Amino acid sequence: MTRVQELYPDNKIILREVGLRDGLQLVKTFPSTQAKQRWMRDEYAAGVRHFETGSFLPAKTFPQFADVRDIIATVASLPGAYGIALTLNERGVNEALASGVAEVATVVSATEEHSQANANRSRESAISNVKRLCELRNASAHKPVVNSAISMALGCSIVGAVDPYEVLRLTEKLFEAGVDMVAIADTVGYAGPKQVGELTAGAVKIAGSKPICIHLHDTRGMGIANAAAALDAGARVLDGSLGGLGGCPFAPGATGNVVIEDLAFLCESKGFKTGIDIEKLVAVREILKSEMPGEALYGGLARAGLPRAAAARVA
Amino acid sequence: MTRVQELYPDNKIILREVGLRDGLQLVKTFPSTQAKQRWMRDEYAAGVRHFETGSFLPAKTFPQFADVRDIIATVASLPGAYGIALTLNERGVNEALASGVAEVATVVSATEEHSQANANRSRESAISNVKRLCELRNASAHKPVVNSAISMALGCSIVGAVDPYEVLRLTEKLFEAGVDMVAIADTVGYAGPKQVGELTAGAVKIAGSKPICIHLHDTRGMGIANAAAALDAGARVLDGSLGGLGGCPFAPGATGNVVIEDLAFLCESKGFKTGIDIEKLVAVREILKSEMPGEALYGGLARAGLPRAAAARVA
Repeated sequence: MTRVQELYPDNKIILREVGLRDGLQLVKTFPSTQAKQRWMRDEYAAGVRHFETGSFLPAKTFPQFADVRDIIATVASLPGAYGIALTLNERGVNEALASGVAEVATVVSATEEHSQANANRSRESAISNVKRLCELRNASAHKPVVNSAISMALGCSIVGAVDPYEVLRLTEKLFEAGVDMVAIADTVGYAGPKQVGELTAGAVKIAGSKPICIHLHDTRGMGIANAAAALDAGARVLDGSLGGLGGCPFAPGATGNVVIEDLAFLCESKGFKTGIDIEKLVAVREILKSEMPGEALYGGLARAGLPRAAAARVA
Repeated sequence: MTRVQELYPDNKIILREVGLRDGLQLVKTFPSTQAKQRWMRDEYAAGVRHFETGSFLPAKTFPQFADVRDIIATVASLPGAYGIALTLNERGVNEALASGVAEVATVVSATEEHSQANANRSRESAISNVKRLCELRNASAHKPVVNSAISMALGCSIVGAVDPYEVLRLTEKLFEAGVDMVAIADTVGYAGPKQVGELTAGAVKIAGSKPICIHLHDTRGMGIANAAAALDAGARVLDGSLGGLGGCPFAPGATGNVVIEDLAFLCESKGFKTGIDIEKLVAVREILKSEMPGEALYGGLARAGLPRAAAARVA
């Protein structure tokens, strides 16, 4: 079994908690390290196994990620849990490889315009960096999984509509560069379910036995519908965050990852097992409420609870 | 062309604004008659044509519907717009028939337990009442469309899970009783998209050329995903409310109809024309904000606006 197969077994749906990184990217207040650890441990107890932990950015600018090594260590201490660290440059890559994190994530832009505006580099140069990341990973001690996201894959805050064939070509190039998996990101929440389903189907076909992760934002209320379409199209790995915490540093107004507890309900309602206890997951929101009282939390399950029948089945 | 074909042409998706009835059923404050009229006229200008106007309930208990005749008259004054009035007993039916409203709606419960608890009658007796309503309609001057909703069709607040075959049998019986259309209601927002899609497909098949309306609540965040599934399964008429206003008098905690502006975005993103200008529709929320400042309004389009590409296409 390869490392990526170990992290992403293909016999169940995997919901990844990205709140500790994507969810904290833009916030003014953030949980203490101890609170983050409780957050992860309680979600772990609810069945979540994949946690985006943070990124290796200057602590002066991003104090919320100053404890990323502690967070990675906490995830590593939980049997069968996996940490993901976002890296945006080679310094970050080296720090991530040294940290022993299970998965190193990076990101390329779907459009040339966004790549230039956001990262001051061409997409080709971004792919070269991904290739370099994969080489460094191959030479590393822990050999983490490498995952590249394609941001703005379903709509771009600069150019608007994005050609899905360009995204699929990028997906191919990323796999050729050596990544173990690709994340398709609707960074600014532009897409509807038809578009998400079609792009997912194309990407899943290209990926073959490797995972495609679908990373959705609920910016325009389409998050759960888009997730349903992604599942129908063969996606088996989806990102979400507790209470829909999060935004995007590159996309002003792009509020909210998909609510992970609603995502779990969606999956179970479609007959896909997630291994997640939804009521336990909802209860973890109390940590966010007390640590980040100013942040809006979203989600239907938290508001209404499980339906009567489902509650009876769980009990 | 029959009256129901006139109200529900089958060459487009019809989104019905139910905020003026379902949306106001539980509220403490409600818009003035003049504000309701502006609400309808502005939504009409945005392309909405179907409005639930209110119900014939005692004004002492439901002062928000005391002006139902004025509201019906306002809708009738807008070319190509259709009013819907909810009736819960024969007195209401007679008042609705006398009002000249385009559509008379009634409701039966999907489960025997809910029918007894909520309306103190069996489902069989409820269907007899629907038959009587259809006879009264046939003898009336205006001969409005008759629509029966099946409440709790996708989950019941009393018994939990609902057998879809029972709902389909009820659908058949309602058509046999003489209704022109049936509304399948997820009154308490229990369902996920798989369940909605399967039930919709069954109901659409039974209905043949007659409309099936899908009435969803976003109680657990599944509203838009469920609407997508209903559209995929052949539904062409869906209910929603501006800002997701609304609840259910029979289902405590069942907050929120599907947000109609997000529903319009969903339809357009799937290539279904609604005739609705989403930006104009979102602007109508200002009326609700000023008339009902204490009510929570929901919706992604109001928060984020149209995506760049779509905005460019509209401009």
